[in-house]
Amino acid sequence: MVTTLRKLAAEALGTAMLLAIVVGSGIMGETLSNGNSAVALLGNTLATGAGLIVLITILGPVSGAHFNPVVTLTFAVRREIGATLALGYIAAQFVGGVVGVLVAHGMFGEVLLQVSTRLRDGSALAMSEVVATFGLVGTILACLRFRSASTPVVVGLYITSAYWFTASTSFANPAVTVARSLSNTFAGIAPSSVPVFILAQCAGAAAAVVVFGWMLHTPTTPFPVPVEADL
Amino acid sequence: MVTTLRKLAAEALGTAMLLAIVVGSGIMGETLSNGNSAVALLGNTLATGAGLIVLITILGPVSGAHFNPVVTLTFAVRREIGATLALGYIAAQFVGGVVGVLVAHGMFGEVLLQVSTRLRDGSALAMSEVVATFGLVGTILACLRFRSASTPVVVGLYITSAYWFTASTSFANPAVTVARSLSNTFAGIAPSSVPVFILAQCAGAAAAVVVFGWMLHTPTTPFPVPVEADL
Amino acid sequence: MVTTLRKLAAEALGTAMLLAIVVGSGIMGETLSNGNSAVALLGNTLATGAGLIVLITILGPVSGAHFNPVVTLTFAVRREIGATLALGYIAAQFVGGVVGVLVAHGMFGEVLLQVSTRLRDGSALAMSEVVATFGLVGTILACLRFRSASTPVVVGLYITSAYWFTASTSFANPAVTVARSLSNTFAGIAPSSVPVFILAQCAGAAAAVVVFGWMLHTPTTPFPVPVEADL
Amino acid sequence: MVTTLRKLAAEALGTAMLLAIVVGSGIMGETLSNGNSAVALLGNTLATGAGLIVLITILGPVSGAHFNPVVTLTFAVRREIGATLALGYIAAQFVGGVVGVLVAHGMFGEVLLQVSTRLRDGSALAMSEVVATFGLVGTILACLRFRSASTPVVVGLYITSAYWFTASTSFANPAVTVARSLSNTFAGIAPSSVPVFILAQCAGAAAAVVVFGWMLHTPTTPFPVPVEADL
Repeated sequence: MVTTLRKLAAEALGTAMLLAIVVGSGIMGETLSNGNSAVALLGNTLATGAGLIVLITILGPVSGAHFNPVVTLTFAVRREIGATLALGYIAAQFVGGVVGVLVAHGMFGEVLLQVSTRLRDGSALAMSEVVATFGLVGTILACLRFRSASTPVVVGLYITSAYWFTASTSFANPAVTVARSLSNTFAGIAPSSVPVFILAQCAGAAAAVVVFGWMLHTPTTPFPVPVEADL
Repeated sequence: MVTTLRKLAAEALGTAMLLAIVVGSGIMGETLSNGNSAVALLGNTLATGAGLIVLITILGPVSGAHFNPVVTLTFAVRREIGATLALGYIAAQFVGGVVGVLVAHGMFGEVLLQVSTRLRDGSALAMSEVVATFGLVGTILACLRFRSASTPVVVGLYITSAYWFTASTSFANPAVTVARSLSNTFAGIAPSSVPVFILAQCAGAAAAVVVFGWMLHTPTTPFPVPVEADL
Repeated sequence: MVTTLRKLAAEALGTAMLLAIVVGSGIMGETLSNGNSAVALLGNTLATGAGLIVLITILGPVSGAHFNPVVTLTFAVRREIGATLALGYIAAQFVGGVVGVLVAHGMFGEVLLQVSTRLRDGSALAMSEVVATFGLVGTILACLRFRSASTPVVVGLYITSAYWFTASTSFANPAVTVARSLSNTFAGIAPSSVPVFILAQCAGAAAAVVVFGWMLHTPTTPFPVPVEADL
Repeated sequence: MVTTLRKLAAEALGTAMLLAIVVGSGIMGETLSNGNSAVALLGNTLATGAGLIVLITILGPVSGAHFNPVVTLTFAVRREIGATLALGYIAAQFVGGVVGVLVAHGMFGEVLLQVSTRLRDGSALAMSEVVATFGLVGTILACLRFRSASTPVVVGLYITSAYWFTASTSFANPAVTVARSLSNTFAGIAPSSVPVFILAQCAGAAAAVVVFGWMLHTPTTPFPVPVEADL
């Protein structure tokens, strides 16, 4: 019971720190960059990628460091976490995310409670979220299959990359998406844009479960692929 | 047979993701940077380097994570992969690369089918591609010889560096080159510039096979090189 | 005795190098960036994060690489370092920090002795320092608990992230704070702003000792969290 | 004998690649950044740091990956490499460095043979080179003492940091210094400024041999430093 409490606390704390990082570094970038959004995004990316590596390293041994409802759902579907604990994780993630946004606002002297007015609509952004979440969940499944100890670094690098290669800057996380709707800053998203993002994220995760579930059912190959019977 | 299918799928998926990263982050950089190409290239570099580390880590155990016809050819020449499987790999890489460009265009709301008008001609760029591919193939051969587990990180760092130290921003990959001819964005290359790039890449790879093939036939030395019989 | 001298020398040298890095790269960034503070902060962040990884790697085996009075105090409270040695460490850190600022000024041709006029006041910055130090000490405690060998990289990445996600750019270190009050450059802090920063840092560290002390008392969990009795 | 040839070839090739990276990425940064030197230095830093990690990883097992006369001299003074082989290494480094500059010029369509007109004079820059080389040699000695396998990454991160925290952007290498005098681009240094740089580098290395030689003669300490007899 105490152990479960610690797991839930780790999920809440980790998601809170993640949102403080995402929103806080967004404000910092926007404030300092004189309107050059590429420079702001560089700082935002560096902070988020590095921060994720830290959070997954230090809280992974406690709770698994999901910090993301679609990741928890993925493990639930694969029966690697029980349904009740999964629900607890998801609740902790949503609560933690909102707290993290408040912390970011407090650190930057912003009004604590905000609602974003930044619309992020349209099929291109929805497709971005499908791709972003497909890649994220696939990365996690492959790391756990082949190189578990590298998971923190590889996931952090994935998000570093995805901030730039998707038009949505890769939310890929329903708890992050909802929390960011409560910040009218660089990282914000208008509440009306949230549902499509979450649907797209679920679709991407489901695709990853199918595609990577099939592809990873294969014996490990050393580098380079050895000679073998041809096609 | 199923295993071979998985390998081909991994090569296609990995090359598709690679092109989505290269082209997508190029569009993002160009869009956000107000014409400061150095800042755009920083974002493009960060996304590509980090993304390559991820892709090689997660798909390397399935297919070897070539994602590059000259890499596959190098292993074929060294008889480390059979000829038929090598052909399958190369086909998967070209198909995957084109799909990845379409995905990038879709994510950024661009017209899906494009042809680049960006000429990349001249002997300086050709020499850049020779050097870039020489270094890439040499890096891969040395990693496999000495530190196989570090291959994903070292290859990702090599490309991070090569984006900046070569005048061509280091394509170093025929499948990437062909696919990028189908994007009239930051990362594009006019079709008329493609053949020289591919020839230069093959020349660089061949030089690496000879030079590194000789140099790596040596016993491993610990740091620092120990006292020994002098010259 | 000689061993203790070496430890104190390592703390002084490491803290001196850290300040030379923080202040020197701040001057470099400010000088080169034509007033774009976001670009200056990117360089400052890159230098500090990379430098910290180096310093903790090379001096950690000698002294533990604290370089930070609140870190030494944390270990003293947890009875992992004796009181007298802890006092020696803290003295070495303050002396080293001041020397490092002088070295930075010397390298950039600045007047050696300066006093900062840059006020860093207000509750938002104080809260930033609480959060920054809470995260730093929590990161250190968790690394030592779970992945001791990764400590240098994870701490360096934490500071990389914290430079951007806190409004104060994350001093998180009383010796660094005092030393930076002696530099009227990018990294400076007016002496009148120092006491609140140090109080906030102590509060953040204390909170981390309590929260992480509780949370880390848990058996290590492999990725992902396994099925278990639900809530 | 063949083995020695391979070692010398590795030193020449590695130093050539290093100079191609330093000079090439400098030209790229200067060309693209519209006169924002901080952005140019960011690209130059990223390319050099990442490239060094690659080169030391892939050529370290062959030759030890010195690429730097003061590093070779350090090992000679410590009797870890014979005098004749050390001379061969140093010759290979100077020749390789010049070739690398020519390659960089070729890749960017520059006149091959140039002489820099960029003066880098004065005591502040000389002091910068003392500090830069002191840190570099100390980093190498400590890595070899405690964490040999991390040497490539830690040295690469050291240079990443030192590009920013020293006013000279950390040449820290006589072969690099001489070679850069042959490039009238971002990375160049006027020949008249070279001798003081080299003297400063030798002084920094000598100081590191003394200081780190003493400090590293200590038993390895786990994180954190354990309780022990106080001062």
